[in-house]
Amino acid sequence: MFVNGVEVEDTFCEVFEVYISRVIVTAYNQCLAENAAREMCGFATSIIMCPAEAGIERILNAEETPDGRAGVSTLICHPSKKALKNQLIARIGQCVLTAPTANAFDGLKDAEERFDAGNKLRYFGDGYEREIIVNDRKCWAIPIMEGDFIVENDFGIHRGIAGGNIFIMGKNQPSALSAAIAAVDAVKMMDGVITPFPSGIVASGSKIGANKYTFLKATTNEKFAPTLRNIVDSKVPTEVEAIYEIVIDGLNEKLVSEAIRKCILAATKVPGVVKISAGNYGGKLGKHKIYLKDLIKS
Amino acid sequence: MFVNGVEVEDTFCEVFEVYISRVIVTAYNQCLAENAAREMCGFATSIIMCPAEAGIERILNAEETPDGRAGVSTLICHPSKKALKNQLIARIGQCVLTAPTANAFDGLKDAEERFDAGNKLRYFGDGYEREIIVNDRKCWAIPIMEGDFIVENDFGIHRGIAGGNIFIMGKNQPSALSAAIAAVDAVKMMDGVITPFPSGIVASGSKIGANKYTFLKATTNEKFAPTLRNIVDSKVPTEVEAIYEIVIDGLNEKLVSEAIRKCILAATKVPGVVKISAGNYGGKLGKHKIYLKDLIKS
Amino acid sequence: MFVNGVEVEDTFCEVFEVYISRVIVTAYNQCLAENAAREMCGFATSIIMCPAEAGIERILNAEETPDGRAGVSTLICHPSKKALKNQLIARIGQCVLTAPTANAFDGLKDAEERFDAGNKLRYFGDGYEREIIVNDRKCWAIPIMEGDFIVENDFGIHRGIAGGNIFIMGKNQPSALSAAIAAVDAVKMMDGVITPFPSGIVASGSKIGANKYTFLKATTNEKFAPTLRNIVDSKVPTEVEAIYEIVIDGLNEKLVSEAIRKCILAATKVPGVVKISAGNYGGKLGKHKIYLKDLIKS
Amino acid sequence: MFVNGVEVEDTFCEVFEVYISRVIVTAYNQCLAENAAREMCGFATSIIMCPAEAGIERILNAEETPDGRAGVSTLICHPSKKALKNQLIARIGQCVLTAPTANAFDGLKDAEERFDAGNKLRYFGDGYEREIIVNDRKCWAIPIMEGDFIVENDFGIHRGIAGGNIFIMGKNQPSALSAAIAAVDAVKMMDGVITPFPSGIVASGSKIGANKYTFLKATTNEKFAPTLRNIVDSKVPTEVEAIYEIVIDGLNEKLVSEAIRKCILAATKVPGVVKISAGNYGGKLGKHKIYLKDLIKS
Repeated sequence: MFVNGVEVEDTFCEVFEVYISRVIVTAYNQCLAENAAREMCGFATSIIMCPAEAGIERILNAEETPDGRAGVSTLICHPSKKALKNQLIARIGQCVLTAPTANAFDGLKDAEERFDAGNKLRYFGDGYEREIIVNDRKCWAIPIMEGDFIVENDFGIHRGIAGGNIFIMGKNQPSALSAAIAAVDAVKMMDGVITPFPSGIVASGSKIGANKYTFLKATTNEKFAPTLRNIVDSKVPTEVEAIYEIVIDGLNEKLVSEAIRKCILAATKVPGVVKISAGNYGGKLGKHKIYLKDLIKS
Repeated sequence: MFVNGVEVEDTFCEVFEVYISRVIVTAYNQCLAENAAREMCGFATSIIMCPAEAGIERILNAEETPDGRAGVSTLICHPSKKALKNQLIARIGQCVLTAPTANAFDGLKDAEERFDAGNKLRYFGDGYEREIIVNDRKCWAIPIMEGDFIVENDFGIHRGIAGGNIFIMGKNQPSALSAAIAAVDAVKMMDGVITPFPSGIVASGSKIGANKYTFLKATTNEKFAPTLRNIVDSKVPTEVEAIYEIVIDGLNEKLVSEAIRKCILAATKVPGVVKISAGNYGGKLGKHKIYLKDLIKS
Repeated sequence: MFVNGVEVEDTFCEVFEVYISRVIVTAYNQCLAENAAREMCGFATSIIMCPAEAGIERILNAEETPDGRAGVSTLICHPSKKALKNQLIARIGQCVLTAPTANAFDGLKDAEERFDAGNKLRYFGDGYEREIIVNDRKCWAIPIMEGDFIVENDFGIHRGIAGGNIFIMGKNQPSALSAAIAAVDAVKMMDGVITPFPSGIVASGSKIGANKYTFLKATTNEKFAPTLRNIVDSKVPTEVEAIYEIVIDGLNEKLVSEAIRKCILAATKVPGVVKISAGNYGGKLGKHKIYLKDLIKS
Repeated sequence: MFVNGVEVEDTFCEVFEVYISRVIVTAYNQCLAENAAREMCGFATSIIMCPAEAGIERILNAEETPDGRAGVSTLICHPSKKALKNQLIARIGQCVLTAPTANAFDGLKDAEERFDAGNKLRYFGDGYEREIIVNDRKCWAIPIMEGDFIVENDFGIHRGIAGGNIFIMGKNQPSALSAAIAAVDAVKMMDGVITPFPSGIVASGSKIGANKYTFLKATTNEKFAPTLRNIVDSKVPTEVEAIYEIVIDGLNEKLVSEAIRKCILAATKVPGVVKISAGNYGGKLGKHKIYLKDLIKS
């Protein structure tokens, strides 16, 4: 298979089920909303050692936010529902409640399962908090030094998926990286997905477990490490000097698949990209498989 | 006391001792270095519920970085030395190792106490990592998908201080906020300090413990909440509608004091700022006190 | 009339006819496309002394650009058709042709009037340029140092309008400014309009001609200058200390009206805003009038 | 000659004399100051068809600005002194006077030659302007809608140089571009120089005059166009697919030389860069020559 003249391997990525909430952060203006959201979604690339996976989904128009102000939507994910709930409280409480002019609203009104993160956070008000309605939503107004912080009572929890991915292989590091940046930009305004790593890009794919240091849960994926090409049973194509991975978490498989498709289309337009592949564990671990060939047929 | 015509209260802020490391993140260019550093320093506003306090200290010139590339320096703080060590491993491992073209170096060469975070992280290399010297520093090159990730073996741990602060009181929210932004900008290029909250600003000062919900460690500082002015024994001046706090962590008391001084000078230049104060707990909790009057004498 | 509790004056803004072209700038990624577009749209706030009025309209999805890459759309305006044509050649030639990985395409396919700016620019190729088709558009590939620059042959010229505006009056400068920033953000992703001034905001409304220095075409609008309140026959309300204007240029009156409506909704949500008005010349100069009351009825 | 393993050609760049002014733009905060400065320095890549060459020199600390606020310094250049004067009036008048909270000060106090741009701009005040002193500088306060705009009376005019440059040749476009971005970042915080092109980078080097279209002053430098390699007497090395140029204007030859040196050091650290060269016209046009070998000796 070829897209824009670049080979796309007939392989699949394995994806995992996670629990996801969508937090809408609003503020006076876009810059303040993004600063709050970025802090809230920080230290959240991979649950291997981060307490969550999170990212900014997209910028919202004022018409799309519950309080009619500038805003961004974010997704926060975790395989453990309990951990996700704790993260909602901690991240909204420490990074939105504290942020100038910021409010926090639920972005999954249709989710059947609800968690009352706002009801937990309102105790910060020490008895001075009060229930209010914002745009038909039950919220809490918590008096703070800047005025009142508004947080919605309930946040939806949705079953989503994590770990959608592609590998972008380039003739050299700048080629593969430029393609990876183009891929991330291609899904920046898309609903329902995030690319949780720094700059949206993974420089260091990992394998489950280890060959040598068996006390580790995950170690470098040496078969895809270009500098080990001559030492290991390498899967790095001959003319490839660097590989980047785009990891995509999202609300469902269809959205993640669509995001992968957009990433492939964008990445293959950058000169020096040699091949697109994807990461999997032989199908043993993930609940679902997304085949690249299914995405680029039409 | 008056600065630029604005009253500065004769009070003090209480500061606490913490352990601090400085991580220098380098990359191809400033944008990539900042993206990695921002992810690494995310979810790190306050150790009340975040696993660390962290922030970008400043942008570095290429001449200032160990590998001669674009970079930023960051500070990561925690009152517990053990927790700081864990955070160094987790944050560098999840947010710099994974970031495109990023490397991580120590920024506290003179610190006597050292922690071999790089030596811990190198196990990710699963036996393929190798020791290298970068600019006279012992480092590890870990083969990953993009090529090699470089991390220094040792990172200094320094006794620094946290919790330096001022309160900026304004006639209305936009005034106090504009002054707070000016204050944060005034220390953005300063060495040795960070403002760890979103946009560098705290909208929600807290008191220790609670009046009503006594199961909480910290609750809203109702005496400084403008919307509670008529309900509680308020410390909010009559013409004040909003208060923002700038919290500053830094390598030592002198630097934090200098940063507070810069913040006062900048904030008092913005129209609508009525008063500058500072937060303390009556001197009972913090090891040191920084008196505002000592900062603005000359 | 009141919106979000803020008085909206029953007045109108006068708008003028201009010629407009829409240039789509694409590149490897959003950042590079925006840098090129921003340079192209610089020094273009007002045709009083700038050679054009121009601005970034919005970020485009890769699906929306002719070459499927990241992009932004821009609007360039001038009351003189000849001047607009010259500006198209100069601005595309100096700021997009020169920009890394950038291409320039027409964004007004339906405009009947066409100008072959690309055909003029192709002479830079000194005979080595070649005609190509990109997505059914006639384009030129001009060999340059980075490879080939692609520019569309024809650009549509549309009759649009300029000078749509509102005045945002605040209790103090930070209030009025925060509201102005919120207003600009509210139209940042809207099609068909731009806010051409720095940060999208005008700090210095002008009147036509002068009282004293009659050699000038435009001078300060002293009746709306708060610091002259006690000296002139002032129109500054008692409790107002600062006024900002949002100027909007756009493809037609309907779009400009809709943008003004969004600006009013957003600005009146910020604390400290006292009144919304609009600038006009008694209806003597502009061809059309936009009444504020018509925008906020429903 | 080799730097970081990359060949540096033994050649020179030719530089031209220009007149330069340095305008310091201050505002409430860095973001507003940068927005104003960027607008003022827009449409200013090359005087071939732009009315000036201009750029942001660097961000200033509050201590470095005349009014103690956040600021940026900018350089505006033109070979014609008269044209530079006109540009100062037009660009400050249209892009700083109009910008929210912005002021404009001279950044060349030591320049013997002075131009009273502020004295010209004060007429906008229509008789309501007043002379004031800011930090020992004679300034004008012009009443506008936001309050008062402050502009210094005199701006220094300095004899500087333009056209310092290097060529960065890469194995492919992303390599050469990544190196060019690294080069630009390496001089971003340096005093006395700017890189006036979009993203600081030139994608399209030009030759003086034309072979075929002799009515043009400048056309593509076909000898350095990779896609013409097999058609013309090419100077593109065999393994090179893309070339970017960094153009540097600055206060004097020493500063421009130092900037070129920094660019070479940074660019040669990026993988896939094959060669560094420089652009000249055989020494016939420029007044000075900067030899690359003189920059990288030590």
